Amino acid sequence: MTVRELHVPLGDRSYPIVIGTGVLAGNDALARLAQGRQVAVVTNDTVGELYEGRLARSLAGAAVRVSIRLPDGEAYKNWASLDRVFGRLLQERFDRQCLLVALGGGVIGDLTGFAAAVYQRGVDFVQVPTTLLAQVDSSVGGKTAINHALGKNMIGAFHQPKLVLADLDTLRTLPARELSAGLAEMIKHGAIADPDYLTQLEQHLAALRACDATALGDAILRSCEIKAAVVAADEREAGVRATLNFGHTFGHAIEAGLGYGTWLHGEAVGAGMVMAADLSHRLGSIDAAVVARLRAAIAAAGLPVRGPAWPFERYVELMSVDKKAQQGTPKFVLLERLGKARVQRVPDAPLREAIAACSG
Amino acid sequence: MTVRELHVPLGDRSYPIVIGTGVLAGNDALARLAQGRQVAVVTNDTVGELYEGRLARSLAGAAVRVSIRLPDGEAYKNWASLDRVFGRLLQERFDRQCLLVALGGGVIGDLTGFAAAVYQRGVDFVQVPTTLLAQVDSSVGGKTAINHALGKNMIGAFHQPKLVLADLDTLRTLPARELSAGLAEMIKHGAIADPDYLTQLEQHLAALRACDATALGDAILRSCEIKAAVVAADEREAGVRATLNFGHTFGHAIEAGLGYGTWLHGEAVGAGMVMAADLSHRLGSIDAAVVARLRAAIAAAGLPVRGPAWPFERYVELMSVDKKAQQGTPKFVLLERLGKARVQRVPDAPLREAIAACSG
Repeated sequence: MTVRELHVPLGDRSYPIVIGTGVLAGNDALARLAQGRQVAVVTNDTVGELYEGRLARSLAGAAVRVSIRLPDGEAYKNWASLDRVFGRLLQERFDRQCLLVALGGGVIGDLTGFAAAVYQRGVDFVQVPTTLLAQVDSSVGGKTAINHALGKNMIGAFHQPKLVLADLDTLRTLPARELSAGLAEMIKHGAIADPDYLTQLEQHLAALRACDATALGDAILRSCEIKAAVVAADEREAGVRATLNFGHTFGHAIEAGLGYGTWLHGEAVGAGMVMAADLSHRLGSIDAAVVARLRAAIAAAGLPVRGPAWPFERYVELMSVDKKAQQGTPKFVLLERLGKARVQRVPDAPLREAIAACSG
Repeated sequence: MTVRELHVPLGDRSYPIVIGTGVLAGNDALARLAQGRQVAVVTNDTVGELYEGRLARSLAGAAVRVSIRLPDGEAYKNWASLDRVFGRLLQERFDRQCLLVALGGGVIGDLTGFAAAVYQRGVDFVQVPTTLLAQVDSSVGGKTAINHALGKNMIGAFHQPKLVLADLDTLRTLPARELSAGLAEMIKHGAIADPDYLTQLEQHLAALRACDATALGDAILRSCEIKAAVVAADEREAGVRATLNFGHTFGHAIEAGLGYGTWLHGEAVGAGMVMAADLSHRLGSIDAAVVARLRAAIAAAGLPVRGPAWPFERYVELMSVDKKAQQGTPKFVLLERLGKARVQRVPDAPLREAIAACSG
């Protein structure tokens, strides 16, 4: 049973990421954080039922321990759920020294992180991601948010966790579709930062989709390393961090246009990366062979490689509210080459062509 | 027409405070901030009607300018109002480079500041406080929040403005009761940090209550200097900043117990400071003469000097949800001497005596 560990270097906001099999049950770092404090585990009905019991030993030293279970799904990543969390914390007289533990996927992690960011102007929290997507992406880096009726993740904060605890065991109960969604972000890490890692993923896609612990542990570690390095260089997304949104300008448009939850986030990002790669090629920065390679890897990961059959104008309309947009003009993350990305606006003509070529 | 200016030194979050008569109409610092950006003025019906027009010249260079008017009053410092702001910003496609301008008292400033803290994970904002309380206290230092049904200011963030613009003209339309409420926080600044300033206030209370521009300008400047120094030393309230809550543990209990808005915040703090001073005396740190002096100054400012006639247990119950409380035990800001405060827990007996002596 190998436990992998890395460190996100952010000065006084630094924290460790622990990755391994069985790490939920009896983790020293979590036990130290929980000791003597008011602790609330925020989870959803599904994940709570499966895994909350395993945290018991790690949280045994807490002064008070409460469980807050929210309904499962992206539709509940909203103010109403947040208000339930606040209501419970206030009823239980949780103070500014309390600790929140986010046990679940990206929805629980983003929402609990935001609750921690603003409850009494900020309290500590721990991420215990239980989906592949959350383990390689959303739990690392301190982006927290809830959705607004008019846009996803539009209300949020940068608030770093004190610890990320990724237990590979929790991935075994994950539907195949959600494993694939996690692979989308891992392929993204390879595409924007590390061609060798992309090769490693391509070679192990079958093992990864079969939940092989060694293949998963190695890949999750590398994805977290890449993400941690980007976040350390640009915590508040003033520059390079925006490259982590490769595939996301298109992906967010697809999610919004279909209605959130129709496609998983990773599925939308899968098709979005193909579109962004195709657009990069049309703007002259990567070869058609690189686009084809990425398309093949994304397909082999079990992800869609084409967006919905919408006209150009529909895509543009949906993309103009993206957080990367400036005064209504969307920006795109393009590949300069495999392993290097940049953010820019693009002319309409190649954008129209890329959308036509990669949708429907 | 004297314009006074000071600087809140917080590294890359530093900002100026401009205090004077007529500064709303044509302010260079605000014009520079607004240039080319999407700008939303958030205000309430009353203040917007009176003063929003004066900002026109300062905001003439904005790319887009929208006005968001909320209903007036503490009861609207809640999620529903915040959601109206977010909805409008999203409808207007406001991006992360936008600028919010809070034009109003503490409710508008706290709510708009919090909106700026979390809209798209953080955008810039400017404070244009139009009440004495907001000019000397809530607009300076970056504390932002909304209320929760179970507690005041329980949901919020530390988010510094880019500029504070305090126009003395706006104080002329302020009801006498609200001027007195502002004086409460100014007396507090003297009590915890500067006995000479307390003397200055005592000598000029009549002029201050008559809205004399020189007396007000001098005192607002000194209050802002004191608050800025405390905030610069402890931005996130890990230590000394908590002393700014002198009178507030009792004051918050009074506000909560009577129902918010029954007494103004400054009125509750007025009575709360008498209670806290009395408690400090009972614990042996200040003379009875100092308690009497503070009580006289607070009374002369037109503020209540006694809390509501509640039993000890009621006060303690209300105080145990204060943000300074730890696991349900309230903390108090006590005077070591005039000009110096500290934060501590206190035994029941003197607390019971102080409440009995200063309420009913």
